[in-house]
Amino acid sequence: MTYTTQLDAAKKKIITKEMKCVAEKEHMAPELLCEKIAAGRVVIPANIMHTSLSPEGVGEGLRTKINVNLGISKDCYNIDAEMKKVQVAVDMKAEAIMDLSNYGKTRAFREAVVNTAPCMIGSVPMYDCVGMLDKELKDITEDEFLKVIEQHAKDGVDFITVHVGLTRALAEKVKDSRRITHIVSRGGSLLFAWMLANNKENPLTSQFDQILDICEKYDVTLSLGDACRPGSIHDATDTLQIQELINLAALSQRAYAHNVQVMIEGPGHVAIDDIEANMLLEKRLCNHAPFYVLGPIVTDIAPGYDHITSAIGASIAASKGADFICYVTPAEHLRLPDLEDMKEGIIAAKIAAHVGDIAKGIPGAIERDHAMSRARFDLDWNTMFELAIDSEKPKAYRANSQPIEEDSCTMCGKMCSMRTVKKVLHGDDVNLM
Amino acid sequence: MTYTTQLDAAKKKIITKEMKCVAEKEHMAPELLCEKIAAGRVVIPANIMHTSLSPEGVGEGLRTKINVNLGISKDCYNIDAEMKKVQVAVDMKAEAIMDLSNYGKTRAFREAVVNTAPCMIGSVPMYDCVGMLDKELKDITEDEFLKVIEQHAKDGVDFITVHVGLTRALAEKVKDSRRITHIVSRGGSLLFAWMLANNKENPLTSQFDQILDICEKYDVTLSLGDACRPGSIHDATDTLQIQELINLAALSQRAYAHNVQVMIEGPGHVAIDDIEANMLLEKRLCNHAPFYVLGPIVTDIAPGYDHITSAIGASIAASKGADFICYVTPAEHLRLPDLEDMKEGIIAAKIAAHVGDIAKGIPGAIERDHAMSRARFDLDWNTMFELAIDSEKPKAYRANSQPIEEDSCTMCGKMCSMRTVKKVLHGDDVNLM
Repeated sequence: MTYTTQLDAAKKKIITKEMKCVAEKEHMAPELLCEKIAAGRVVIPANIMHTSLSPEGVGEGLRTKINVNLGISKDCYNIDAEMKKVQVAVDMKAEAIMDLSNYGKTRAFREAVVNTAPCMIGSVPMYDCVGMLDKELKDITEDEFLKVIEQHAKDGVDFITVHVGLTRALAEKVKDSRRITHIVSRGGSLLFAWMLANNKENPLTSQFDQILDICEKYDVTLSLGDACRPGSIHDATDTLQIQELINLAALSQRAYAHNVQVMIEGPGHVAIDDIEANMLLEKRLCNHAPFYVLGPIVTDIAPGYDHITSAIGASIAASKGADFICYVTPAEHLRLPDLEDMKEGIIAAKIAAHVGDIAKGIPGAIERDHAMSRARFDLDWNTMFELAIDSEKPKAYRANSQPIEEDSCTMCGKMCSMRTVKKVLHGDDVNLM
Repeated sequence: MTYTTQLDAAKKKIITKEMKCVAEKEHMAPELLCEKIAAGRVVIPANIMHTSLSPEGVGEGLRTKINVNLGISKDCYNIDAEMKKVQVAVDMKAEAIMDLSNYGKTRAFREAVVNTAPCMIGSVPMYDCVGMLDKELKDITEDEFLKVIEQHAKDGVDFITVHVGLTRALAEKVKDSRRITHIVSRGGSLLFAWMLANNKENPLTSQFDQILDICEKYDVTLSLGDACRPGSIHDATDTLQIQELINLAALSQRAYAHNVQVMIEGPGHVAIDDIEANMLLEKRLCNHAPFYVLGPIVTDIAPGYDHITSAIGASIAASKGADFICYVTPAEHLRLPDLEDMKEGIIAAKIAAHVGDIAKGIPGAIERDHAMSRARFDLDWNTMFELAIDSEKPKAYRANSQPIEEDSCTMCGKMCSMRTVKKVLHGDDVNLM
């Protein structure tokens, strides 16, 4: 092989088979895609060990992708139950699955996910440390953190989240901040605790070069985590968040120089009028690296409906440049999502991604809306169901509420505007009685 | 009485009891509210016959309000079933109900709604014409249209939608347009059919002065309907829509001069990057009259989930100046909404209104988010439920998924970032095993 990673290949103007595949999926010239990867504006997370992968690109000019979180934990460690979620994510065409397992047979589960799913697999090795090493957090050594990362890389994970922007200096500022929710990143909070318990620098930051070596070897894409992402709109766009983003920008340049592909992770809870500035800042500070957002959730007061609050934020984020959306389910802030929550979350994230793609001018996006609208005007229900983001629910709705007039629905009946206008345009009488 | 309408009173600097009530609800000085009404920037829809009303203001500087549509129709003419929806709307604190009844005992239903509901009641008299007059659409005379409007005014309706911007000249342009979904406004489509069948001007436009007389007499607020609102993102912000808005702007000035309060109705289906311009245009062209939006729905391809697509659009619209949001339920485009659909629609609209209020800086809006975030950091579940837009669903979620650790939820268990950070800040050990 004449290159290590997709980024190394792109810098050498080599078009890999992964690039060809992504270019075809995206209706983009492979040369242009290659240029964008070389510029660090697009990544193709594709671990060389993940042989079942159907590669996807993330970044500028490409379709907005969505990620589904799942994994085994102390409250839900049944591997079979969790594998059902993997199947749902694959069936519903999520482009990525993050395995956030933190308890039980995490390696067996990870291997099963990598072997089963053709989508990109991500993980947060930090979550797995306590379980895999069977040691209390504060007793884990720097070297052991690296071992877990290497294990995930060997196991075929395509991208890993590392919270390297939360330096010791920044952690001290968190302690003294006026934030309401402080740190809501799980990985970030664990590193925060470890640093203060051991009076040391963030072990991922101090060993960033070693992490880059591992990532280059397996072509693992780094997703630079935002430990200081706001967990309340009160805490959004504050000094902690932006200082961490500046730290991540510098680290992303080191990764780029090391031929390791990089995405940046973003908020979080953000009021609606802050979102555009957040997108701009990430793109400017991080040299247009792909932006992976969790939410943003635009209000804190809608537990049970955070698939909606995040779809609002993610739609705006995507339309202003976010490239990758992490799904949020109705169970967010409340419990582990069940299968139904998951489906709701996936659909809401797909809506947001599509809304963003319309604004981005992604080929084929708005055309699907136009086709739907033509079908709607034609009252062609089957075509509508086919074109819908989810076909099941609209089919069920129509099936259980058949109108008196077939060329209408029960919402308007004979008063259907489509029906009326068509009759007028065809020169037919409009009879409403 | 020394004034006719709230607008007449405001022009005379008389502070009415309705203004006092609204000023108190909005934490605004009554004098400022009075000025805004006098300027046409705020309306208080309060028919003098609607004695059970607890008045609400709509417009600049006030909380964003939401409306619930319901009514009896040929596909659902059971008055008792529909009255249950009225009760749900009232219980869930919708500020307005539009009675869109078009079949059966519409007057009896309307009277029941007006007598039951303390919220603003709106209607579209056009819908009621065929049913109330028991005549085929094209045979209805100009004078009869006025009679229906007068009946609604006498019955205590606080605001009525009249599609007066769809002139005959504009209707001809609709015929020749390249729109995909042409006219999707029900009232608009009926007037379109009537004009072309009778070869006459829009009877509401030609009799606008008579309508103003009726509205002034009962203080009915006019909601100038957008017959040409886009029914697909393809049709948004086109010549038809903007020409109609210009027509409505001119008519709103005539209403203002006649002391009749006016709101303007807006889209519809609009791509996300068009929404802000739509809000700006309405405010500029219509002298900052309150803007009442239906959606906007930001993609056409999510039938079954249009409470989400419209919450996305309405959030942005509200944050950019929309004052009043019509709810959209998951049943939109598919069937009449049932009670569950209604609840989902109301909650989604309330989320959008609140998201807008945060951006507008409405007193008390963001403070509720901050209180929720404090409760969240304290893991104070009861306060969280109290502050939530909907308490039932989050309560049920938590009840059926109790975590092993009480000071967490099953999503993260012992890995809860809040728990970890609090332990660190208190100097306690973080034990994860």
